[in-house]
Amino acid sequence: MNKIDEICTSYYRVPLEEVLVDAMHGDHTHFELVVVDIICSDGLSGCGYTYTGGYGGKAIVQVIEHDLKPFLLQKDPDCIEYLWNKMNWRIHYVGRGGIAGFAISAIDIGLWDIRGKKAGLPLWKMAGGRGRTVRAYAGGIDLHYPIERLLSNTRNYLQHGFHGIKIKVGQNRLAEDVERAAAVRELIGSEKKLMIDANMRWSAAEAVRAARAMKDLDIFWLEEPTIPEDFSAYNLIRKEGGIPVAMGENLHTIYEFKDAFSIGRIDFPQPDASNIGGITGWLKIACLAEASNLPVCSHGMQELHVSLLAGTVNGGYMEVHSFPIDKYTTCPVELNENGEAVAPDVPGTGVDFNREILNAYKDPQ
Amino acid sequence: MNKIDEICTSYYRVPLEEVLVDAMHGDHTHFELVVVDIICSDGLSGCGYTYTGGYGGKAIVQVIEHDLKPFLLQKDPDCIEYLWNKMNWRIHYVGRGGIAGFAISAIDIGLWDIRGKKAGLPLWKMAGGRGRTVRAYAGGIDLHYPIERLLSNTRNYLQHGFHGIKIKVGQNRLAEDVERAAAVRELIGSEKKLMIDANMRWSAAEAVRAARAMKDLDIFWLEEPTIPEDFSAYNLIRKEGGIPVAMGENLHTIYEFKDAFSIGRIDFPQPDASNIGGITGWLKIACLAEASNLPVCSHGMQELHVSLLAGTVNGGYMEVHSFPIDKYTTCPVELNENGEAVAPDVPGTGVDFNREILNAYKDPQ
Repeated sequence: MNKIDEICTSYYRVPLEEVLVDAMHGDHTHFELVVVDIICSDGLSGCGYTYTGGYGGKAIVQVIEHDLKPFLLQKDPDCIEYLWNKMNWRIHYVGRGGIAGFAISAIDIGLWDIRGKKAGLPLWKMAGGRGRTVRAYAGGIDLHYPIERLLSNTRNYLQHGFHGIKIKVGQNRLAEDVERAAAVRELIGSEKKLMIDANMRWSAAEAVRAARAMKDLDIFWLEEPTIPEDFSAYNLIRKEGGIPVAMGENLHTIYEFKDAFSIGRIDFPQPDASNIGGITGWLKIACLAEASNLPVCSHGMQELHVSLLAGTVNGGYMEVHSFPIDKYTTCPVELNENGEAVAPDVPGTGVDFNREILNAYKDPQ
Repeated sequence: MNKIDEICTSYYRVPLEEVLVDAMHGDHTHFELVVVDIICSDGLSGCGYTYTGGYGGKAIVQVIEHDLKPFLLQKDPDCIEYLWNKMNWRIHYVGRGGIAGFAISAIDIGLWDIRGKKAGLPLWKMAGGRGRTVRAYAGGIDLHYPIERLLSNTRNYLQHGFHGIKIKVGQNRLAEDVERAAAVRELIGSEKKLMIDANMRWSAAEAVRAARAMKDLDIFWLEEPTIPEDFSAYNLIRKEGGIPVAMGENLHTIYEFKDAFSIGRIDFPQPDASNIGGITGWLKIACLAEASNLPVCSHGMQELHVSLLAGTVNGGYMEVHSFPIDKYTTCPVELNENGEAVAPDVPGTGVDFNREILNAYKDPQ
């Protein structure tokens, strides 16, 4: 039997070129990247990973090293879904979701990389095989940009050919949000999709008011108008605001997504494989979305989500996040002439990192 | 202004005298204790802490040291609820609840210790001042005990004068659960309360079947019959099973408890200050329970919960957990002749640890 022989965890704290700001997470100055190399007795190895907005990364390393690794060593790497379930139960009391979910995500992605390499299959085929492309939009983290900078940023996105553009909202004055969204809409024209993201800033009533104030701007979706736990509010906001709603980056269990579908009636679920339990967790959410007759979307991690969204039968729209992960991977995401991202066609996830460049940000444990 | 000058975190991995078993958490061989000493510029210091069932402790240390401490140093320790809110938002993306919640709990308890010492107030008064006593029951972790051992254990509890006794259920054969519960009921007589705890083992249908099979045993509550996310199932189990339901140790946010009350209609909420966000989090749940016309109970951490339950106006029943924490604190919980636990009457939480004894289990970071 093939067995997991070794698990090596590396932590990187990577500076951003400029401080990025959204409504509730404050200033982003770094992102944390945790990379997990899983080596098997048959000689194959897999690259798993997760990242954070700047906090929690060192704790994720500890969960992997102290709580999960002793269980995983000598186990059969092929039985991924079973191991996923066992990992979740092992650390259930200090779960569910949260930091435990990020740690399980990193391991799970490494195991899928091994699965693909062993089978000679790329991730887009393992995820369903629908195709290699998915519509991509640019997710700006631009709440602090003066409007001139917001527009020059948008022009840059347009030059790259994105299918749509998302801007942050949640200024102190609603009129300013409306003004910024209107300016971006005018710049991009009526064909491109425009999304807005409030990062949980508003109450339900504030969100409804904001949505109504932008009713003439053809907003494709309103993302995270309020806290992720208040599914009833999501239902109310979509109904009374008149704009479809999106959410998911802050839901870290299948149970939360189940409620987001049934109680929240969300329109665009956005699971993130880096925190929902890896590829196994992401595919479970895609299945829940399919059962709710919805397209599945994504948050961040575009270099991996491109394959999942392209391959799954109900793949929707992919965010290309503002964190500059493409500088550090061996497979930067590329767009075709239709504004679609193209999945890598190599066995495994197709994602690895340029370790030499990353080494400058490695933290001694 | 008084300021937080230093935060020192210690990790202990404490062996249990024997392996303890419940239905879904497997074998318990150790518990992890994380102690946080908070030192202020005015010379006062507070002792905060949390514990786990054996996993996640090292990650909790990292969250405290790397993610929370840089924010807390030089802040005013008196503004506890504000700091609690800020800590939750700072690590929101790798939250909510879970390991982040345990880390915030430890810090929060240390801040309350300082608040009490500064004001010269014991915790039972800060929690409301209702009184110094609360009814205590013994929480056995005894799923693996042969029935003779279960009964001798129960006799031991009776000698200590507990108000009630809780046993684990969730054997492979329901008939065995019924037999064991019936034997314990016969031994303790009709006056003492008998609770059963399934540790999430069952589906809703299995839980209803089990509850009905024990209808003649006067079960005071059925604890965690199924997974904590399925609040609708809790509602169904209490209605169709005919036994009141209890839960809470696996709910780590105020939002989850809100749903447990409104959707789950649970009868006995059991927040645990070691994972719900410390004393601040626990008191918020007590308030939600009060608004739902329910007594608030507890899980574990009896040395601290005794003061919270005694002081709060709707304090219900306190679990005395099987982990031998009393061996390591400077304030072992004591019962009076009425089976009630008695809160310490010293300024602060009244909880500190015998560091010399604990040192044997200290893990070098």
